[in-house]
Amino acid sequence: MAAFAQDHGPHYTGDNELIRPEGYREWVFIGATLGMSYDPNSAKRKEPKFHNLYINPASYREYKETGRFPERTILVMEVLTAGSHSSINKQGNFQDKVLGVEVALKDTSRFKESWAYFNFIRDDGSAADSVRAFPKESCWSCHDEHAATDNVFTQFYPVLRRDP
Amino acid sequence: MAAFAQDHGPHYTGDNELIRPEGYREWVFIGATLGMSYDPNSAKRKEPKFHNLYINPASYREYKETGRFPERTILVMEVLTAGSHSSINKQGNFQDKVLGVEVALKDTSRFKESWAYFNFIRDDGSAADSVRAFPKESCWSCHDEHAATDNVFTQFYPVLRRDP
Repeated sequence: MAAFAQDHGPHYTGDNELIRPEGYREWVFIGATLGMSYDPNSAKRKEPKFHNLYINPASYREYKETGRFPERTILVMEVLTAGSHSSINKQGNFQDKVLGVEVALKDTSRFKESWAYFNFIRDDGSAADSVRAFPKESCWSCHDEHAATDNVFTQFYPVLRRDP
Repeated sequence: MAAFAQDHGPHYTGDNELIRPEGYREWVFIGATLGMSYDPNSAKRKEPKFHNLYINPASYREYKETGRFPERTILVMEVLTAGSHSSINKQGNFQDKVLGVEVALKDTSRFKESWAYFNFIRDDGSAADSVRAFPKESCWSCHDEHAATDNVFTQFYPVLRRDP
Protein backbone atom coordinates (compact mmCIF):
# COMPACT_ATOMS: atom_id res chain seq x y z
CA MET A 1 0.00 0.00 0.00
CA ALA A 2 1.42 3.34 -1.03
CA ALA A 3 -0.35 4.79 2.02
CA PHE A 4 2.31 3.18 4.20
CA ALA A 5 4.91 5.46 2.62
CA GLN A 6 2.93 8.68 3.04
CA ASP A 7 3.96 11.24 5.66
CA HIS A 8 1.28 10.97 8.35
CA GLY A 9 3.28 13.01 10.85
CA PRO A 10 3.81 13.76 13.62
CA HIS A 11 3.88 17.48 12.82
CA TYR A 12 4.70 20.12 15.43
CA THR A 13 4.35 23.88 15.79
CA GLY A 14 7.46 25.99 16.46
CA ASP A 15 6.81 25.85 20.20
CA ASN A 16 6.63 22.05 20.42
CA GLU A 17 2.86 21.63 20.25
CA LEU A 18 1.55 18.65 18.28
CA ILE A 19 -0.63 19.58 15.30
CA ARG A 20 -3.93 17.70 15.23
CA PRO A 21 -3.66 14.69 12.88
CA GLU A 22 -5.83 14.74 9.77
CA GLY A 23 -6.99 11.89 7.58
CA TYR A 24 -6.70 9.29 10.33
CA ARG A 25 -10.02 7.69 9.29
CA GLU A 26 -8.09 6.21 6.36
CA TRP A 27 -5.44 4.78 8.71
CA VAL A 28 -5.73 1.29 10.19
CA PHE A 29 -8.53 0.84 12.73
CA ILE A 30 -7.38 -1.27 15.71
CA GLY A 31 -10.46 -1.49 17.96
CA ALA A 32 -13.36 0.30 19.61
CA THR A 33 -14.51 0.55 23.21
CA LEU A 34 -17.66 1.83 24.92
CA GLY A 35 -17.72 3.52 28.32
CA MET A 36 -14.29 2.28 29.40
CA SER A 37 -12.91 3.54 32.69
CA TYR A 38 -9.82 2.55 34.60
CA ASP A 39 -11.06 4.15 37.80
CA PRO A 40 -12.87 1.66 40.10
CA ASN A 41 -14.13 4.55 42.24
CA SER A 42 -15.65 6.65 39.51
CA ALA A 43 -19.43 6.73 39.35
CA LYS A 44 -20.92 4.61 36.60
CA ARG A 45 -20.94 6.85 33.57
CA LYS A 46 -24.34 8.21 32.67
CA GLU A 47 -23.40 8.89 29.08
CA PRO A 48 -20.79 6.33 28.06
CA LYS A 49 -18.68 7.32 25.05
CA PHE A 50 -17.38 5.27 22.17
CA HIS A 51 -13.66 5.39 21.45
CA ASN A 52 -12.38 4.40 18.00
CA LEU A 53 -8.64 3.73 17.84
CA TYR A 54 -6.48 4.14 14.74
CA ILE A 55 -2.76 3.67 14.06
CA ASN A 56 -0.73 5.26 11.27
CA PRO A 57 -0.28 2.66 8.48
CA ALA A 58 3.54 2.54 8.42
CA SER A 59 3.71 1.78 12.15
CA TYR A 60 0.93 -0.80 11.82
CA ARG A 61 2.92 -2.63 9.17
CA GLU A 62 6.09 -2.61 11.25
CA TYR A 63 4.26 -3.71 14.40
CA LYS A 64 2.65 -6.63 12.55
CA GLU A 65 6.08 -7.78 11.36
CA THR A 66 8.14 -7.20 14.49
CA GLY A 67 5.78 -6.81 17.47
CA ARG A 68 7.36 -3.44 18.20
CA PHE A 69 6.07 0.10 17.76
CA PRO A 70 8.60 2.18 15.80
CA GLU A 71 9.45 5.80 16.43
CA ARG A 72 6.76 8.20 15.13
CA THR A 73 3.97 5.76 15.93
CA ILE A 74 0.73 7.74 16.24
CA LEU A 75 -2.40 6.32 17.85
CA VAL A 76 -5.50 8.45 17.36
CA MET A 77 -8.51 7.97 19.64
CA GLU A 78 -11.70 9.43 18.18
CA VAL A 79 -14.34 10.06 20.86
CA LEU A 80 -18.03 9.77 19.91
CA THR A 81 -21.36 9.88 21.67
CA ALA A 82 -23.40 6.67 21.85
CA GLY A 83 -26.73 6.88 20.04
CA SER A 84 -29.70 4.57 20.53
CA HIS A 85 -33.37 4.19 19.66
CA SER A 86 -32.96 6.07 16.39
CA SER A 87 -34.28 4.94 13.01
CA ILE A 88 -35.07 1.22 13.36
CA ASN A 89 -32.64 0.63 16.21
CA LYS A 90 -34.48 -0.69 19.27
CA GLN A 91 -31.64 -1.61 21.61
CA GLY A 92 -27.89 -1.34 21.83
CA ASN A 93 -25.75 1.58 20.70
CA PHE A 94 -24.36 3.04 17.51
CA GLN A 95 -21.78 5.79 17.13
CA ASP A 96 -23.39 9.19 16.86
CA LYS A 97 -21.69 12.59 17.21
CA VAL A 98 -17.93 13.01 16.95
CA LEU A 99 -16.62 14.89 20.00
CA GLY A 100 -12.97 15.06 18.94
CA VAL A 101 -9.66 13.26 19.15
CA GLU A 102 -6.92 12.39 21.61
CA VAL A 103 -3.49 11.13 20.61
CA ALA A 104 -0.70 8.88 21.92
CA LEU A 105 2.60 9.41 20.17
CA LYS A 106 6.03 7.78 20.36
CA ASP A 107 8.78 10.28 19.59
CA THR A 108 11.89 9.78 21.69
CA SER A 109 13.63 12.70 20.00
CA ARG A 110 11.20 15.06 21.75
CA PHE A 111 9.87 13.22 24.80
CA LYS A 112 12.29 11.56 27.18
CA GLU A 113 9.68 8.96 28.23
CA SER A 114 9.29 8.11 24.50
CA TRP A 115 5.48 8.26 24.58
CA ALA A 116 3.48 11.48 25.00
CA TYR A 117 -0.28 12.09 25.26
CA PHE A 118 -2.41 14.88 23.82
CA ASN A 119 -6.05 15.96 24.06
CA PHE A 120 -7.39 18.06 21.18
CA ILE A 121 -10.87 18.44 22.74
CA ARG A 122 -11.13 21.82 24.47
CA ASP A 123 -13.25 22.25 27.61
CA ASP A 124 -15.92 24.00 25.53
CA GLY A 125 -16.01 21.04 23.09
CA SER A 126 -14.27 22.79 20.21
CA ALA A 127 -11.24 21.28 18.47
CA ALA A 128 -7.74 22.58 19.20
CA ASP A 129 -5.44 22.92 16.17
CA SER A 130 -2.36 22.12 18.26
CA VAL A 131 -1.73 21.24 21.90
CA ARG A 132 1.10 20.60 24.33
CA ALA A 133 1.66 17.09 25.74
CA PHE A 134 0.19 16.19 29.12
CA PRO A 135 2.67 16.12 32.00
CA LYS A 136 4.13 12.67 32.61
CA GLU A 137 1.98 11.86 35.64
CA SER A 138 -1.33 12.47 33.82
CA CYS A 139 -1.24 9.59 31.34
CA TRP A 140 2.22 8.19 30.84
CA SER A 141 2.60 6.57 34.26
CA CYS A 142 -0.58 4.49 33.98
CA HIS A 143 0.19 3.43 30.42
CA ASP A 144 3.71 2.51 31.45
CA GLU A 145 2.46 0.36 34.31
CA HIS A 146 -0.54 -1.39 32.75
CA ALA A 147 -0.18 -1.47 28.96
CA ALA A 148 0.66 -4.87 27.53
CA THR A 149 3.07 -3.68 24.85
CA ASP A 150 5.37 -0.67 25.12
CA ASN A 151 2.82 1.72 26.69
CA VAL A 152 0.04 0.59 24.31
CA PHE A 153 -3.05 -1.21 25.67
CA THR A 154 -2.83 -3.90 23.02
CA GLN A 155 -4.82 -6.16 25.37
CA PHE A 156 -7.91 -4.10 24.47
CA TYR A 157 -7.38 -3.86 20.68
CA PRO A 158 -8.10 -7.05 18.74
CA VAL A 159 -6.22 -5.98 15.62
CA LEU A 160 -2.99 -5.55 17.60
CA ARG A 161 -3.16 -8.76 19.60
CA ARG A 162 -0.35 -11.13 18.74
CA ASP A 163 -2.33 -14.25 19.63
CA PRO A 164 -5.91 -13.53 18.57
CA MET B 1 -3.43 5.13 -2.05
CA ALA B 2 -2.40 2.14 -4.11
CA ALA B 3 -4.70 0.07 -1.88
CA PHE B 4 -7.65 1.64 -3.69
CA ALA B 5 -6.51 -0.03 -6.92
CA GLN B 6 -6.03 -3.50 -5.43
CA ASP B 7 -8.48 -6.28 -6.21
CA HIS B 8 -10.42 -6.79 -2.99
CA GLY B 9 -13.08 -8.93 -4.64
CA PRO B 10 -15.81 -10.03 -4.60
CA HIS B 11 -14.61 -13.55 -5.44
CA TYR B 12 -17.00 -16.45 -6.02
CA THR B 13 -16.81 -20.22 -6.18
CA GLY B 14 -18.00 -22.00 -9.34
CA ASP B 15 -21.45 -22.52 -7.83
CA ASN B 16 -22.05 -18.86 -6.99
CA GLU B 17 -20.99 -18.88 -3.36
CA LEU B 18 -19.11 -15.82 -2.09
CA ILE B 19 -15.59 -16.54 -0.84
CA ARG B 20 -14.90 -15.09 2.60
CA PRO B 21 -13.09 -11.73 2.25
CA GLU B 22 -9.54 -11.57 3.59
CA GLY B 23 -7.48 -8.57 4.64
CA TYR B 24 -10.51 -6.40 5.42
CA ARG B 25 -8.84 -5.09 8.58
CA GLU B 26 -6.71 -2.94 6.29
CA TRP B 27 -9.81 -1.59 4.52
CA VAL B 28 -11.57 1.58 5.68
CA PHE B 29 -13.36 1.30 9.04
CA ILE B 30 -16.76 3.03 8.96
CA GLY B 31 -18.17 2.52 12.46
CA ALA B 32 -18.80 0.16 15.37
CA THR B 33 -21.94 -0.76 17.28
CA LEU B 34 -22.62 -2.67 20.51
CA GLY B 35 -25.68 -4.86 21.09
CA MET B 36 -27.73 -3.42 18.24
CA SER B 37 -31.08 -5.01 17.49
CA TYR B 38 -33.82 -3.96 15.11
CA ASP B 39 -36.37 -6.18 16.81
CA PRO B 40 -38.44 -4.34 19.46
CA ASN B 41 -39.81 -7.65 20.75
CA SER B 42 -36.53 -9.43 21.25
CA ALA B 43 -35.43 -9.91 24.82
CA LYS B 44 -32.66 -7.61 25.94
CA ARG B 45 -29.48 -9.33 24.91
CA LYS B 46 -27.59 -10.92 27.76
CA GLU B 47 -24.32 -10.93 25.90
CA PRO B 48 -24.31 -7.95 23.55
CA LYS B 49 -21.84 -8.19 20.67
CA PHE B 50 -19.64 -5.58 19.05
CA HIS B 51 -19.88 -5.14 15.29
CA ASN B 52 -17.01 -3.48 13.40
CA LEU B 53 -17.89 -2.35 9.88
CA TYR B 54 -15.40 -2.01 7.02
CA ILE B 55 -15.75 -1.00 3.37
CA ASN B 56 -13.40 -1.87 0.51
CA PRO B 57 -11.15 1.15 -0.17
CA ALA B 58 -12.07 1.75 -3.83
CA SER B 59 -15.78 1.93 -3.00
CA TYR B 60 -15.07 4.16 -0.02
CA ARG B 61 -13.24 6.62 -2.24
CA GLU B 62 -16.03 6.68 -4.81
CA TYR B 63 -18.73 7.04 -2.15
CA LYS B 64 -16.89 9.99 -0.58
CA GLU B 65 -16.75 11.70 -3.97
CA THR B 66 -20.23 10.91 -5.30
CA GLY B 67 -22.44 9.78 -2.39
CA ARG B 68 -23.15 6.55 -4.27
CA PHE B 69 -21.97 3.00 -3.68
CA PRO B 70 -20.49 1.57 -6.88
CA GLU B 71 -20.87 -1.98 -8.12
CA ARG B 72 -18.66 -4.45 -6.23
CA THR B 73 -19.01 -2.52 -2.98
CA ILE B 74 -18.24 -4.90 -0.10
CA LEU B 75 -19.17 -4.14 3.50
CA VAL B 76 -17.66 -6.52 6.04
CA MET B 77 -19.14 -6.76 9.53
CA GLU B 78 -16.77 -8.35 12.02
CA VAL B 79 -18.58 -9.71 15.09
CA LEU B 80 -16.77 -9.72 18.45
CA THR B 81 -17.60 -10.51 22.04
CA ALA B 82 -17.65 -7.64 24.54
CA GLY B 83 -15.03 -7.95 27.27
CA SER B 84 -15.04 -6.12 30.61
CA HIS B 85 -13.30 -6.04 33.98
CA SER B 86 -10.06 -7.34 32.53
CA SER B 87 -6.60 -5.88 33.18
CA ILE B 88 -7.18 -2.39 34.60
CA ASN B 89 -10.60 -1.96 33.01
CA LYS B 90 -13.23 -1.36 35.70
CA GLN B 91 -16.32 -0.48 33.66
CA GLY B 92 -17.46 -0.33 30.08
CA ASN B 93 -16.54 -2.75 27.30
CA PHE B 94 -13.67 -3.52 24.99
CA GLN B 95 -13.62 -5.86 22.01
CA ASP B 96 -12.54 -9.33 22.98
CA LYS B 97 -12.90 -12.53 20.90
CA VAL B 98 -13.55 -12.44 17.16
CA LEU B 99 -16.59 -14.59 16.33
CA GLY B 100 -16.49 -14.16 12.55
CA VAL B 101 -17.75 -12.01 9.70
CA GLU B 102 -20.92 -11.23 7.78
CA VAL B 103 -20.96 -9.42 4.44
CA ALA B 104 -23.21 -7.09 2.43
CA LEU B 105 -22.30 -6.94 -1.25
CA LYS B 106 -23.53 -4.95 -4.23
CA ASP B 107 -23.20 -6.93 -7.44
CA THR B 108 -26.06 -6.40 -9.85
CA SER B 109 -24.52 -8.79 -12.35
CA ARG B 110 -25.31 -11.68 -9.99
CA PHE B 111 -28.13 -10.50 -7.71
CA LYS B 112 -31.22 -8.94 -9.21
CA GLU B 113 -31.88 -6.87 -6.06
CA SER B 114 -28.30 -5.53 -6.44
CA TRP B 115 -27.40 -6.14 -2.78
CA ALA B 116 -26.92 -9.59 -1.27
CA TYR B 117 -26.12 -10.69 2.30
CA PHE B 118 -23.88 -13.46 3.59
CA ASN B 119 -23.05 -14.99 6.97
CA PHE B 120 -19.70 -16.76 7.26
CA ILE B 121 -20.26 -17.81 10.89
CA ARG B 122 -21.47 -21.42 11.03
CA ASP B 123 -23.88 -22.58 13.72
CA ASP B 124 -21.01 -24.30 15.52
CA GLY B 125 -19.00 -21.04 15.52
CA SER B 126 -16.47 -22.10 12.88
CA ALA B 127 -15.74 -19.98 9.81
CA ALA B 128 -17.17 -20.96 6.42
CA ASP B 129 -14.80 -20.53 3.46
CA SER B 130 -17.69 -19.70 1.11
CA VAL B 131 -21.45 -19.31 1.50
CA ARG B 132 -24.57 -18.73 -0.56
CA ALA B 133 -26.50 -15.45 -0.22
CA PHE B 134 -29.47 -15.25 2.13
CA PRO B 135 -32.86 -15.33 0.45
CA LYS B 136 -34.23 -11.87 -0.29
CA GLU B 137 -36.70 -11.81 2.62
CA SER B 138 -34.05 -12.53 5.27
CA CYS B 139 -32.02 -9.31 5.05
CA TRP B 140 -32.59 -7.42 1.83
CA SER B 141 -36.15 -6.33 2.53
CA CYS B 142 -35.33 -4.63 5.82
CA HIS B 143 -32.23 -2.95 4.43
CA ASP B 144 -34.23 -1.78 1.42
CA GLU B 145 -36.90 -0.28 3.64
CA HIS B 146 -34.85 1.32 6.41
CA ALA B 147 -31.34 2.04 5.19
CA ALA B 148 -30.58 5.71 4.59
CA THR B 149 -28.47 5.26 1.46
CA ASP B 150 -28.95 2.53 -1.15
CA ASN B 151 -29.53 -0.36 1.28
CA VAL B 152 -26.68 0.78 3.57
CA PHE B 153 -27.42 1.95 7.13
CA THR B 154 -25.26 5.04 6.72
CA GLN B 155 -27.27 6.64 9.53
CA PHE B 156 -25.38 4.39 11.97
CA TYR B 157 -21.85 4.80 10.54
CA PRO B 158 -20.19 8.14 11.27
CA VAL B 159 -17.54 7.80 8.56
CA LEU B 160 -20.21 7.48 5.85
CA ARG B 161 -22.47 10.30 7.00
CA ARG B 162 -22.62 13.08 4.47
CA ASP B 163 -23.36 15.77 7.07
CA PRO B 164 -21.34 14.83 10.16
